[in-house]
Amino acid sequence: MPNRPVEFDRVFHALADPSRRSMLERLVRGPASVSQLAEPLAMSLAAVVQHLGVLEDAGVVASEKVGRVRTCRLESAGLRRAEDWLVAQRTEWEGRLDRLGHVLASPDDDG
Amino acid sequence: MPNRPVEFDRVFHALADPSRRSMLERLVRGPASVSQLAEPLAMSLAAVVQHLGVLEDAGVVASEKVGRVRTCRLESAGLRRAEDWLVAQRTEWEGRLDRLGHVLASPDDDG
Repeated sequence: MPNRPVEFDRVFHALADPSRRSMLERLVRGPASVSQLAEPLAMSLAAVVQHLGVLEDAGVVASEKVGRVRTCRLESAGLRRAEDWLVAQRTEWEGRLDRLGHVLASPDDDG
Repeated sequence: MPNRPVEFDRVFHALADPSRRSMLERLVRGPASVSQLAEPLAMSLAAVVQHLGVLEDAGVVASEKVGRVRTCRLESAGLRRAEDWLVAQRTEWEGRLDRLGHVLASPDDDG
């Protein structure tokens, strides 16, 4: 896996907040305006814009302003890389458990 | 998925640091003492213990002290839940893309 420490830091940091996860859970269903993102959240529009900045810095959301409306959309590759890192750890861990299982299943096998 | 906002906050926060990810990448290969975890990291043992505390608070690592040696091991369920959240988002996102693809492939279909 390529070494992208700062990118991983930003993505996982972006995910470490319930409001930002809510915004992502909305955006996986399709693009949304900032007002639409703010609607279910009990916070000011300014706070939403600040969270949006964190998501954009992490590269998991992109936005475009047309006229007076800023529309946000998911950048799925960032989340995919975070998932890939977790899958890589689980694969290593499960492989180790499998090997331990084999050792325990054949205690007399020297081969 | 059950609503565990604080738990998700802690797990993703724990992952948002390259030293803590390194420690986890070590622990998926098997238990390790604090000194073993510290060895590849360019930081004081005190700093490693602090990072370990964050990993333990997040429930992704457990440790046990026997005599003078504290041994750390992965608690894989915490990482699995983070992975599950990411998979759920990707599934929703890919489902949406599939539906969009179908709409674009049959523009004259009113049914």
